[in-house]
Amino acid sequence: MSEKYIYDLSEGDASMKPLLGGKGAGVAEMTRLGVPVPDGFTVTTQACIETMNNNGEWPEGLRGQIADALTRFEQRAGRVLGASTKPLLVSVRSGAVVSMPGMMDTILNLGISDESVDAIAAESGNERFAWDCYRRFIQMYGEVVEGLSSHVYEDALTAMKRAKGAESDTDLSAADLKELTAEFKRISNEELGGNWTNDPREQLFRAVEAVFRSWQNPRAQVYRKANHIPDDLGTAVNVMQMVFGNRGDTSGTGVCFTRNPSTGEKALYGEFLTNAQGEDVVAGIRTPRPLSELRDVLPEAYDQLIKTMRTMETHYRDMQDMEFTIENGKLYMLQTRNGKRTAAAALKVAADLVDEGLIDKEEAVRRIEPEQLDQLLHPAIDPNHSAAPVVTGLPASPGAGVGAAVFDADTAAEKGAAGEPVILIRFETTPDDIHGVLQSQGVLTAHGGMTSHAAVVARGFGKPCVAGATTIKINPDAKTVTIGDVVIHEGDQITVNGSTGEVFNGPLALIPPRLGEDFQKVVGWADEIRDLGVEANADNGPDAAKARELGAEGIGLCRTEHMFFGEHRLPAMHEMILATNDEERRSALDKILPMQQADFEAIFTEMKGLPVTVRLLDPPLHEFMPDLVTQALTVQELELTGADPGELAAERTTLAQVKKLHEQNPMLGTRGCRLGMLYPQIPDMQARAVVRAALAVFEREGETVQLQIMIPLVHLQQELKTQREIVVAAVDDELAKAGKQLDYKVGTMIELPRAALCADQIAQYADFFSFGTNDLTQTTLGISRDDAENGFLGWYESSGVVKRDPFATVDVDGVGQLVRMGVEKGRSVNPSLSTGVCGEHGGDPDSIAFFQTIGLDYVSCSPYRVPIARFAAAKAKLAQQDSAS
Amino acid sequence: MSEKYIYDLSEGDASMKPLLGGKGAGVAEMTRLGVPVPDGFTVTTQACIETMNNNGEWPEGLRGQIADALTRFEQRAGRVLGASTKPLLVSVRSGAVVSMPGMMDTILNLGISDESVDAIAAESGNERFAWDCYRRFIQMYGEVVEGLSSHVYEDALTAMKRAKGAESDTDLSAADLKELTAEFKRISNEELGGNWTNDPREQLFRAVEAVFRSWQNPRAQVYRKANHIPDDLGTAVNVMQMVFGNRGDTSGTGVCFTRNPSTGEKALYGEFLTNAQGEDVVAGIRTPRPLSELRDVLPEAYDQLIKTMRTMETHYRDMQDMEFTIENGKLYMLQTRNGKRTAAAALKVAADLVDEGLIDKEEAVRRIEPEQLDQLLHPAIDPNHSAAPVVTGLPASPGAGVGAAVFDADTAAEKGAAGEPVILIRFETTPDDIHGVLQSQGVLTAHGGMTSHAAVVARGFGKPCVAGATTIKINPDAKTVTIGDVVIHEGDQITVNGSTGEVFNGPLALIPPRLGEDFQKVVGWADEIRDLGVEANADNGPDAAKARELGAEGIGLCRTEHMFFGEHRLPAMHEMILATNDEERRSALDKILPMQQADFEAIFTEMKGLPVTVRLLDPPLHEFMPDLVTQALTVQELELTGADPGELAAERTTLAQVKKLHEQNPMLGTRGCRLGMLYPQIPDMQARAVVRAALAVFEREGETVQLQIMIPLVHLQQELKTQREIVVAAVDDELAKAGKQLDYKVGTMIELPRAALCADQIAQYADFFSFGTNDLTQTTLGISRDDAENGFLGWYESSGVVKRDPFATVDVDGVGQLVRMGVEKGRSVNPSLSTGVCGEHGGDPDSIAFFQTIGLDYVSCSPYRVPIARFAAAKAKLAQQDSAS
Repeated sequence: MSEKYIYDLSEGDASMKPLLGGKGAGVAEMTRLGVPVPDGFTVTTQACIETMNNNGEWPEGLRGQIADALTRFEQRAGRVLGASTKPLLVSVRSGAVVSMPGMMDTILNLGISDESVDAIAAESGNERFAWDCYRRFIQMYGEVVEGLSSHVYEDALTAMKRAKGAESDTDLSAADLKELTAEFKRISNEELGGNWTNDPREQLFRAVEAVFRSWQNPRAQVYRKANHIPDDLGTAVNVMQMVFGNRGDTSGTGVCFTRNPSTGEKALYGEFLTNAQGEDVVAGIRTPRPLSELRDVLPEAYDQLIKTMRTMETHYRDMQDMEFTIENGKLYMLQTRNGKRTAAAALKVAADLVDEGLIDKEEAVRRIEPEQLDQLLHPAIDPNHSAAPVVTGLPASPGAGVGAAVFDADTAAEKGAAGEPVILIRFETTPDDIHGVLQSQGVLTAHGGMTSHAAVVARGFGKPCVAGATTIKINPDAKTVTIGDVVIHEGDQITVNGSTGEVFNGPLALIPPRLGEDFQKVVGWADEIRDLGVEANADNGPDAAKARELGAEGIGLCRTEHMFFGEHRLPAMHEMILATNDEERRSALDKILPMQQADFEAIFTEMKGLPVTVRLLDPPLHEFMPDLVTQALTVQELELTGADPGELAAERTTLAQVKKLHEQNPMLGTRGCRLGMLYPQIPDMQARAVVRAALAVFEREGETVQLQIMIPLVHLQQELKTQREIVVAAVDDELAKAGKQLDYKVGTMIELPRAALCADQIAQYADFFSFGTNDLTQTTLGISRDDAENGFLGWYESSGVVKRDPFATVDVDGVGQLVRMGVEKGRSVNPSLSTGVCGEHGGDPDSIAFFQTIGLDYVSCSPYRVPIARFAAAKAKLAQQDSAS
Repeated sequence: MSEKYIYDLSEGDASMKPLLGGKGAGVAEMTRLGVPVPDGFTVTTQACIETMNNNGEWPEGLRGQIADALTRFEQRAGRVLGASTKPLLVSVRSGAVVSMPGMMDTILNLGISDESVDAIAAESGNERFAWDCYRRFIQMYGEVVEGLSSHVYEDALTAMKRAKGAESDTDLSAADLKELTAEFKRISNEELGGNWTNDPREQLFRAVEAVFRSWQNPRAQVYRKANHIPDDLGTAVNVMQMVFGNRGDTSGTGVCFTRNPSTGEKALYGEFLTNAQGEDVVAGIRTPRPLSELRDVLPEAYDQLIKTMRTMETHYRDMQDMEFTIENGKLYMLQTRNGKRTAAAALKVAADLVDEGLIDKEEAVRRIEPEQLDQLLHPAIDPNHSAAPVVTGLPASPGAGVGAAVFDADTAAEKGAAGEPVILIRFETTPDDIHGVLQSQGVLTAHGGMTSHAAVVARGFGKPCVAGATTIKINPDAKTVTIGDVVIHEGDQITVNGSTGEVFNGPLALIPPRLGEDFQKVVGWADEIRDLGVEANADNGPDAAKARELGAEGIGLCRTEHMFFGEHRLPAMHEMILATNDEERRSALDKILPMQQADFEAIFTEMKGLPVTVRLLDPPLHEFMPDLVTQALTVQELELTGADPGELAAERTTLAQVKKLHEQNPMLGTRGCRLGMLYPQIPDMQARAVVRAALAVFEREGETVQLQIMIPLVHLQQELKTQREIVVAAVDDELAKAGKQLDYKVGTMIELPRAALCADQIAQYADFFSFGTNDLTQTTLGISRDDAENGFLGWYESSGVVKRDPFATVDVDGVGQLVRMGVEKGRSVNPSLSTGVCGEHGGDPDSIAFFQTIGLDYVSCSPYRVPIARFAAAKAKLAQQDSAS
C-alpha cells in the first residue's frame, strides 16, 4: 500500500504543519474549531519531497489518491468539477511549512470550462462575471501551469479591445469575453503545440504538479536562502472550494491582523475590498479600505470576523494574520497563521500577551526572533530638520532609509551589494523584486496598502517602506519619479520614513535608534534566562559607550591596531617598522605609548567596573605600509619621468621595505604574537599603556575596569609562555613604580587549529581563552575570507554546496568540533579557565545556540548585535533545556 | 643526603652511559674488562643538568664529592695533585651521552704547578718537557677555563722568541720556558684582575665548571641542532690520570677503528704519532702514520692494541673507534665508542656482523641510521672525463662534490644556505667550522689525516672530503689557493672526489650513485620487517623509473600541474583560463588532453603492475599567469613610453585577467577541487586522459598500473561526492567507449584541518586517504611555508621556540593529532579505507616512526628518499614492537 498523501480538511489539525504546510494545517484547525472555512483537501509536503527526489516523477498512488479525494470532496459539496450543472470550482494553492508569502504559485477558479461556464453564469446571475472568470482562469493556468508568457494573452486582449473599440477591460461585454476566451484557448493550444487540455481533472493534476515545481523557482530559492529555510522541506498543495468576493457589493475579501503588525498595538488592523478577489488586496492593484469600515458595509460578517479573530488569537496564543472572503454576505476564513511583525511589534505583542496571561515570560522570549531585532537598531530621521516631505504615503514598514533612487530590483540588488545605499522605487513590488528589496535601504511604492506585498516583505526584512504613495508618477523607462513638480532621477538621493510614510527629496541626517520599554521588559526576561555572558567588540570610547548602553557586560575584544593608524601615529609606526635595532624600535614605540594610553583611558572610562579584554597588536606589519603594486608603480613612474633623485631614492627605500615585508599569504604570516616574539618591545609597550590607562582611570573615577590582556595567534605553548612573561613583567613593573595593586588576567585567542588541538598545553599559561572563530574558520576550512566570498565560496553558497556561509554561522562539524575540543582540553588542565568567542559568530543566533551547548562562558559581538545576542543566548538556553527534558 | 654525583671508574659500566656519558661509561667498561685504562673518576651528567637548571650554581654536595673522589684517586695512585713529590697530573674532559667530537672543552696536565714541576722534570728526566708542559697548561687553562684570548699568550711567546733570538718554539730552552711560564702566569693574573689561581685543586673545580659551561657553547649548540641531539642531556666530566705519549720515541698516541669507517672493510684502520700528545693526531697539526707501521716501532704495544681492538669489538658487537696512548712502551686505552662511519661502511659492517654471527638481521637494521643513507645517493664523478687532478690528498670522506671555492666557514654557510654550491677549503677545520661544512658540497684541507676533525665531521654529515692535501698553499686573506701553478680564487669552480682524494680545477660532470650489494642485502632485511608501504612522488617517466629502481612500491603522488606548463602547453592553459564559457573551456582542455595522456603513458609504462595515484589539478590558476606586479609595471611602462596601442591593449587585457585571478592568500584560495567544482570540465578531461593512458599502456605492454585518482583540497563531503561523480562518469564513459574493463579507485587528499575533523563524512566517498601533511601543517599551524622559513619560523627554530622545523618533521601534537583522527574516523565508516601520507614528511624517519604508531598503510616520498623510508619504516616497526613488549 502506498503512503497517505492526501488529507481531507477534517482529517488534519494544527500539529500536522510539517506534513500539511502552514495553510493546510491552519484551515484544518479552523475547521476543527468550527470556524467557517471552504471545504477541500491537502496534498502533503511528503508528496512534494518525493516528487523532487524522483526528478519530478510523482510517487506511486498519488494520482489515484487525488482522484479519490476529489470524488469525496465532490460528494460533500454536492458538486462536480467542471460539470454542466452544479459545477465545483476550486483554488489550488501552495502551503509551505514556513510561510513564504507570494513566493510560490496559485491557481484560482479551476473547474471552469466550456461545460460549466453557463452553469456558473446562471448560479451567479451574471454572465459577464462567468466569462471574465473563465478568460482569467485560462490566462492564469496558461502562465502558471503551462509556463506561457503573459504577452501571449495581453496581446490578444489588446487586439480584442482595439477590435471592439473598448478603452478598458470593463468595456468588454460578456460576448466579447466569450470570444476572448475562445481566442485564449486557441492561442494556448497553439503555443503548447497541441498539448493544451480542457479537462478540469487533468488541469487539476497539472496544477498540483506546477505548485510542486514552484517550490524550486528562483524567487522561492532566494527567499529561503535569505530566511535560512531549508530547501528540502517541500510544499503542500491546498485544493479548496472557490468562494467569490467579487459577486457584487455584498461580497468582498480582505486581510486582517489580530494586532497591529507594525507597532504590536492591540487594535483593529486590516483591509478589505468589496467586490474583489483576494489577489486584488495582496497584490496592491486596488488600494483597499481599512477594516473598520467593514462594520458599516457588512455588519454581520464584520461581527463574525471580529469574533473569529479573537477566537483564533486566543487559541494560538499569538497574533494571527488571516485572510477572509465574504461571498454574498457569508464570511469564509481562507487562512490563518502567526502574523509576521516588526521587531517592535514582536516585543510589544510578547509583553502584552504576558500581561494578558496568555503566555509566560519564557514563552515571550521564545517568541522573539533575535535576528529581527536588528531592525530596531536601525537609525531614524534626526528630528531637527526643516525639510518638508514631498509626498506622504502609507507607513508600511518602520524605520528610515537614505539612498540613491533606483527603479528596478536588479539595479538595487547590484548597487546595494556593492555597498551603495539605494532606495528601491516601484509602482508595486512583486515576488520577483525580493532580491532588490533585500539590498535596499528602503522601499517606496505608488500602489498597495499596509498588507501589500511590498509592505509584508519590507517588514519581514526590517526595511523601511512607504507604500501606496498614489500621487507619485514613476517612469521606469526614463528611470525617473515625478512627485509634484520634483523630478527625481536614478542616482538622486532620497529619504523615506517608513514610520510616518513621509518621503523627502535629498538625504536627511539619521540618528541612532532608541530601544523602548517593551524591549527593556522582554530583554530583562531574556537576561534572567540566559547563562551565556554577552560582551561587545569595541576599539574606542564611543563604541564602548554604545556597547554598554545596549547591555554589553564587558568588552570581549578591544583591538589595538586601529590605534596605530591615523595621521599622527602612522609616522611613529613607520619608524618602528623601519627600525634596524632594538633601541630605534623602542624609541618609536615610546612615541606611540601615550597615544595608546589615551585611547585605552577613553574606553576604560566608559567600561569601569566591567571586564575589558585588550588584544595586543595582531596584523602583519605590511598593513601599515603602502601597497606593493602601488609602490612599484610609483618608483617606475619616477624613473621613467626623470624625477627628483631625492624623491626617487626615498620611494625606492620604501619599496625595498615593502618588498621585505611582503608575504605570499599574509593570513598565515608574521602577525599576532609572532610579532611580539620577534619584537618583545611591542607587547611590553602595549602592556604598559594598558596598565597606565587603568590606573589613570581609577585615579580619576575611583573605579577602573577588570583588565584582561589577550595574546593573539598563539599556536605553541612556548609563545604564550614567553608573551605572558613579557606582559606580566611590564605590568608588574608599572604597578611597582606606581605603588599600586591591580588584578589582571592574561589569556589568549584560540584562532588556529593547533591551538585548539593542543589547548591542554596552552591553557597552562592562560587565564582565559577567546575563540577567534573567524580566523579559525579560515584556517580550518582553508578559505581566505578576503578572496572567497567573491570567489568560489559565493558560488558554493548559491549552488547549495554549502548550506550556510561559514563566516556568518559557525561550521559546527569542523570549526565547532575544534572549539568544543579547545574548551574541554583547556578546562581539563585549568578548571578556572574562562572561555568565550569574539568575532561575528558571537552575534549570530544559530552560532550562539551551538556555543551554549558546549558550555562557553560568554560571547562577544559588535555593539549593535548585543541585544540580538542577549535574546539568542536566552533562546539557546531554553532550547538546551528542551532537548535535555 | 645529597645525590651521588661522582663515580670512580671501578663503579661504572657501559649501561650507565646516560649518567656517565659515552666516554665515562666506555672507560669504566674497559676497566671492568681488564683493559689498561688510566685511573680516575667521572662527574655525572646529572650534576651538569642541575647546574644548568640552577643558572650555573653547582648542586649542594658536588664540591665535597669531587674533593673526596680526588682523595680516593690520590690514594689509589699513590700520588697527590700538585704535590712536590710524586705529583698527580690529570686530564679533565667532557663526555656527552651522544658523541659530539671536539665540540666541548678539554684540559690536560692539570696538577702541574710551581710545586710539582720539578718533580715532573725529575720523573721524566726531561726538564724542558716539564716546563713546556707547564707553559702549555697555563695557556690551555687560561683560554678554556678562564676565557682569556689566545693572543695574550701568543704575543708573549713571540716576544720571548724575539728576545731569545729563537726561530721556532723548539729553539727555546728549559730556562726560556720557565721564564715564559712565569710571564704567562703574570699576564693571566693581570687579565683576570687578580683572580688567577695557582692552586691545582681550585683549578680542578674551575675546569669541571668550564666543561659544564662548554655544553652550552655556540658550536655545541649548532652540532646538537644539526644532529637532533636534545639540549637538556648535559655532559659528564671525566677526570683521568695523565699518560704521556710525548715522552720520547717509546711513547706515542693514536686513534684506531676496528674496521674501515669509510668502506666498512674488516681491515686495520688507524693512525698514530710517536712522541706526541693525543690532540696532535685529532687536530691534524702533524700528519700521522698508518697504524700498521706501529708494529715495527712498538711491537709489544701494537700486539696488545690489536688484541684490545678485537676484544672490544666483540664485546660491543659493533665497530669501535678507540683512542690510545703509549707511555714508555705501555699501552693505555683512553676511550672506546661505536665508530662513526659512512653509510656504505654502516651497511657493510652490519652485513658482515650478521655473517660473523655477532648480531642478527633485526639488529643489523637497527644499526642503520636511515637519514645517513642520503649520502649513498649522492652523485659520483662521471668516469668519462679526461681531466687530470691538480692534487691528490687523503680520501677522507667518500662521494664527489662540485662548487665554488670558499675559504671560510661563514661564507660557506651563507652561500650554501642561499643555494649556491660551495667547496670549503681550509688549512685544517676546527669545531668552529661546523656550520660551514654543513652547507658545503665538499671539504678540502691542507693538513690532517683520515681521522682529523674535518674527516670525522665530513663523514658524519655525508659530505665528500679530501684531507691532508699538503702541497696546496692557502692564502685566507687573499682568498686564494695555489695548487702547483694553478691559482684558484674564491668563487672559482672546483671538484673534489672524497672517494679517491683527487681534486680537479673546474667543474666535472657528476653521475647518479648506485646502491651496492650490501645495501640490497640489508634493505632486504628491512623490507621483511616493515609493514608500512613505501611509495614515491613522481610526475614523469624518468622520476618514476628512478623511484622503482630505488624500491618504491608505487607512485603515491603524481602531480599533474607540471604537465600544464611548458612552451606548447601554456597557451592552451591560458585559453582555458581566459575562456568565457564552458564551450571555449572545453575546447582548450581538448588540446591539453593528449599531452596529459602522453605524460601519463610514460609514467604508467615504468610503473606497470604497481599502484599509481594521480592527483587532479591543484594550484590556483593565477600560477599559470604572469605575476601581478610585473604585469602592472609592463602596462605602465607601455603607457608612459607611448607604446603600440595594440600591444598596450593586449597587455591591459592580460593585466585585467591577472587582477581578477589575484588572491590575497592563494594558499587558502580557489585551488584544488574548488577548481574542479567551478570548472567540472577539468576533472572530466583529466580523468579521461588518465584512463586512456592506462588502456594504451595495457595495449602495448600487456599490463598496466593500479589506477588511483585523487581529489585535492577537499574540506566538504559534498565536494568529494561531486568530484567523484564527475571522475567516475568520465572514466566509465571512456571504458565503455573502449569496450574495456579496468579497476580503479577514487580517493582524496586530507590536507585541511576540516577534512581530518570530518573524515567520517568524507570517507563515505573515498577509497583512500592521502594525508597532505605539508598543506595540513600550513593550515593547522597557520604558517605559510613560502613566507615563514625566511621569516619568523627560521627565528623560532634558531632560538629554540620550536624544537624541529614542522615542515621537515611532522608536528605530532597538532598535525599528528589530526592525522590520527583522520585515520580513525575514516576507518570507522569505511574499514577498507587505505591511508597514506605524501609529501616531505613521508621521507622523514622521525615522522615515519609516528605514522607507524597510528597505523598508516603507506608513506610516499621523493624517489631518493625511498631507501631511507624503507629503513625508517623497518626501524619504526621495531620501535613499536619494543615499546609494546
